[in-house]
Amino acid sequence: MAEAQANIGVVGLAVMGSNLARNLAHHGNTVAVYNRSYGRTETLMNEHGDEGKFIPAKTIEEFVSSLAKPRTAIIMVKAGAPTDAMIEALADAMEPGDIIVDGGNSYFPDTIRREKEIRARGLHYVGCGISGGEEGALNGPSMMPGGTDESWKTLGPILESIAAVAEGEPCVTHIGHDGAGHFVKMVHNGIEYADMQLIGESYDLLRRGLGMSAEEIANTFDEWNKGDLDSYLVEITAEVLHHVDAKTGKPFVDVVVDHAGMKGTGTWTVQTALDLAVPVTGIAEAVFARGLSSMEAQREEVKSKPLAGPDGKINVEDKAAFVEAVRQALYASKIVAYAQGFDEIRAGAAKYDWNIDLGAVARIWRGGCIIRAKFLNRISDAFDSGEKFESLLQDAYFKAAVENAQDAWREVVSTAARVGIPVPAFSSSLSYYDGLRSDRLPAALIQGQRDFFGAHTYGRVDMPGTFHTLWSGDRSEIEE
Amino acid sequence: MAEAQANIGVVGLAVMGSNLARNLAHHGNTVAVYNRSYGRTETLMNEHGDEGKFIPAKTIEEFVSSLAKPRTAIIMVKAGAPTDAMIEALADAMEPGDIIVDGGNSYFPDTIRREKEIRARGLHYVGCGISGGEEGALNGPSMMPGGTDESWKTLGPILESIAAVAEGEPCVTHIGHDGAGHFVKMVHNGIEYADMQLIGESYDLLRRGLGMSAEEIANTFDEWNKGDLDSYLVEITAEVLHHVDAKTGKPFVDVVVDHAGMKGTGTWTVQTALDLAVPVTGIAEAVFARGLSSMEAQREEVKSKPLAGPDGKINVEDKAAFVEAVRQALYASKIVAYAQGFDEIRAGAAKYDWNIDLGAVARIWRGGCIIRAKFLNRISDAFDSGEKFESLLQDAYFKAAVENAQDAWREVVSTAARVGIPVPAFSSSLSYYDGLRSDRLPAALIQGQRDFFGAHTYGRVDMPGTFHTLWSGDRSEIEE
Repeated sequence: MAEAQANIGVVGLAVMGSNLARNLAHHGNTVAVYNRSYGRTETLMNEHGDEGKFIPAKTIEEFVSSLAKPRTAIIMVKAGAPTDAMIEALADAMEPGDIIVDGGNSYFPDTIRREKEIRARGLHYVGCGISGGEEGALNGPSMMPGGTDESWKTLGPILESIAAVAEGEPCVTHIGHDGAGHFVKMVHNGIEYADMQLIGESYDLLRRGLGMSAEEIANTFDEWNKGDLDSYLVEITAEVLHHVDAKTGKPFVDVVVDHAGMKGTGTWTVQTALDLAVPVTGIAEAVFARGLSSMEAQREEVKSKPLAGPDGKINVEDKAAFVEAVRQALYASKIVAYAQGFDEIRAGAAKYDWNIDLGAVARIWRGGCIIRAKFLNRISDAFDSGEKFESLLQDAYFKAAVENAQDAWREVVSTAARVGIPVPAFSSSLSYYDGLRSDRLPAALIQGQRDFFGAHTYGRVDMPGTFHTLWSGDRSEIEE
Repeated sequence: MAEAQANIGVVGLAVMGSNLARNLAHHGNTVAVYNRSYGRTETLMNEHGDEGKFIPAKTIEEFVSSLAKPRTAIIMVKAGAPTDAMIEALADAMEPGDIIVDGGNSYFPDTIRREKEIRARGLHYVGCGISGGEEGALNGPSMMPGGTDESWKTLGPILESIAAVAEGEPCVTHIGHDGAGHFVKMVHNGIEYADMQLIGESYDLLRRGLGMSAEEIANTFDEWNKGDLDSYLVEITAEVLHHVDAKTGKPFVDVVVDHAGMKGTGTWTVQTALDLAVPVTGIAEAVFARGLSSMEAQREEVKSKPLAGPDGKINVEDKAAFVEAVRQALYASKIVAYAQGFDEIRAGAAKYDWNIDLGAVARIWRGGCIIRAKFLNRISDAFDSGEKFESLLQDAYFKAAVENAQDAWREVVSTAARVGIPVPAFSSSLSYYDGLRSDRLPAALIQGQRDFFGAHTYGRVDMPGTFHTLWSGDRSEIEE
């Protein structure tokens, strides 16, 4: 039996878990490691045991007793039942004051529920979003822990030791209580969906629309990556587009089946936004676009029964100018997607009573995670400026950026509609912008319809109160 | 104590419940009526007791004993806890074989759960969607009952006696087991949201864009109501737009606060579609547009800090031609919204093992309900034709309709983007159409990105299997 000497433990040693354990060991932590089947533990020790101080354990009891108090263990197993089972086993073996961390992509209401249960047993439970994939887990992820302030005292320094670093600061902060960390990680992933969809629409316009080759577009993304759009996703888009398939000599992107998969966090982001009545149209269109791409039966049917429409070709005198317009449309739409995502975080914080520092959220997304981008400096600047705004679109920098980009943005959406290239996220973001800036919306007509058929009542612009018109009667107005 | 002689009972005598009870009495049923507070029961008896055969009851026991076997009672109380309480009370007082009907807008997973619980006690439980508002309840609603085949034998003739009639057929059919009825009613409401939003966007284009008066637009909707768009919603839109506010002499629509409210079924429709991975972009944009309209703080902020953009004015030589283009855009977008809604019903039926006749669903929506429209004859024709299609957009009639309308549709979306009028549902529907008909989608690039940062793998167009490129290695491809 090992003596209690590890300051941190990792449970679940698939790629994410073992990379995280190695990262912890690389930064001076002594890491207890446990996996349900010991084979993975042996593999980790054989291949990487010399990279730092590990204490392998064969049983949960051995694992727990190898941890110094307060015992702190990060669970890296599948979300759902496996996570529940592991939490239960750890809680049984641990003592009050110990800390259980769920490092998976758990659904935040589950995290809220579990935190409550575990807290009732005197232990700390921390739902911690971890972004950056396998590479991030190994070399520095962006991390979004929830849980109690007390748990952060122990866990904070450990996570800070392994986080990505952006502009000298570790990409981790205590997001808020109970499910706040998983909530913010969920919205992070939702924004990632929107960002990827916007890049996809840009690519489609250049490829189908302008007839550029994959390689030319790769070069374009390389260029874009030097300006406002400087980001990991733009960078890897160029990498993917540069890549040539060895089997066929064709551009890699042309041999990949065009059905985009998903794993749930995008869906949750939109479902949660619907509960909060926050429009996240860019994220929703991105999730639905993936759904559409995977509707095999319907897309197959189109092959034998084509649906008529223009062929997508864009005839412009000045190709370079249109490419620049697409870049600006991408930037403006991206700003809208982030504004919507931050709206969702703000609404979630209000509903669940989390005290979330939005500037800090932007800062920890600057490194380690999939949506890392220079752009996030601008967002953290906006939130940290002390300037008050209800929408990120009202921050001076972003307001000017969108206003400058909008002519191009309108040109791109307008052209896409004419030539038949789908731009659900571009156009939805533009409609959101135009909706937000509208003095009067046709929602007034909708309220009129609702009052007509369902007596749902309405407000008047010229006096307080709630009114109903007797539509089937003499059409006089009554106050409710 | 009354003798058992009522063939149907109604519990909950607010407007919907008492109207439904009167409708039942008008059609030869003997109706037991009960309300938690007896005052409402007295009011019903005093004001309408002479309209047919009612048996008023002061207690649940009295109510139940006044029902002939199998006792059949329709609950018309608020969804949620009040419904649960009433079900419990009725189930306690009833006997095996009796039938409890929930006529409210319950969330279908609740209906599935309740049906299971009540069935275990030997009773029948029927979740029944009822559309048409107060007026429909009184004069003929469209009804969507779920529940067992056996319950339908008793309940069917009763509901048929009070349903709206369209083309000689009652607007009610047995949708499927357990929660099928509430599911279909939910999607009905979602489609209603999309339809209303599309009408709102049309209005906005004519009003802000072309500068037409409310009265001119009312006349336009009156015209539209004579053609393909002939529907209850278009009809009442004209009514609302004709209406002049008595207090100010202004068009009614101009004095109504432009914050559109909602009560949950639209939100559920989109959340459920997300679970089923069915893109319902038109409905989602409609729900989000209502959300946006009600974002008071953000819209207030725009008043002091306007977001720049064009003023919405549409300069066209031929106004009438643009009005016709809007009509066609509305029709095409509406077809997409219905195609998406029926996709959701089909996917829900597959998941929950309901045998839903989509043609019958279209038929019972032709009368009594809010989305009733001539258009639904075309949909039922499509489903009843025996023609096979994966998407309603592939039915010969709708395919031709959209193909004919699409030039105008593109013109409208394109113009709106340029002049700054938000058309989230128009543009989203167009993008859906263009996405569906695309031979290749940028989803291939998204799969490439996902493989790059998360090793999510991809399929190849030229061979079966699942592949991963070693992006951080030598970029060779491995088969998983």
